Amino acid sequence: MTTTVQRPEHPEVSDIELTEVLFALSDPSRLAIVQLLASGASGELMTCQSVGGDLAKSTRSHHLKTLREAGVIRSTPQGRERLISLRRDDLDARFPGLLDAVLTDGHS
Amino acid sequence: MTTTVQRPEHPEVSDIELTEVLFALSDPSRLAIVQLLASGASGELMTCQSVGGDLAKSTRSHHLKTLREAGVIRSTPQGRERLISLRRDDLDARFPGLLDAVLTDGHS
Repeated sequence: MTTTVQRPEHPEVSDIELTEVLFALSDPSRLAIVQLLASGASGELMTCQSVGGDLAKSTRSHHLKTLREAGVIRSTPQGRERLISLRRDDLDARFPGLLDAVLTDGHS
Repeated sequence: MTTTVQRPEHPEVSDIELTEVLFALSDPSRLAIVQLLASGASGELMTCQSVGGDLAKSTRSHHLKTLREAGVIRSTPQGRERLISLRRDDLDARFPGLLDAVLTDGHS
């Protein structure tokens, strides 16, 4: 049973677009999700539910989709859940310093 | 300061919001304007016409307003024109490394 068809789309590192990343990070809820993932408080991998838990499910799904399609996060199926992780290495490789700058000042 | 009423709105440095800056930079046309201003090819100050000159006037005005209100650019009246400049020092002070990261990789 090949299940790759059902996997969510993740752009290759070389296909990650700066403007799409900036847009993905420009929403306070999405930025908060990225900050949470980056904080490592709950480890690198988090369930969808634990990320943006105070958002309505449809809103959270929309935000996670925007982040995923921009190349900011990775969504990995695990059993009946999906685990979310920040594509920090990919982003650092593609746009050096960007994530650090955003995360340093994201609390303002 | 008694002459601020007629001037275009520019947020104070401390009021510049990260998400608004990221949104302002997330549009390819606006990012190109910022790259042009940062390149210094035409000096620091540019007229509205010379910035985003290939855009429709209304589109250009909208983009410049978005950049100005986010705190990314400053619009200074000079005679019958307005001169546009990048608020590089303000942005560097508020979000160290952000503009450098964006400008380094903005051509992708």
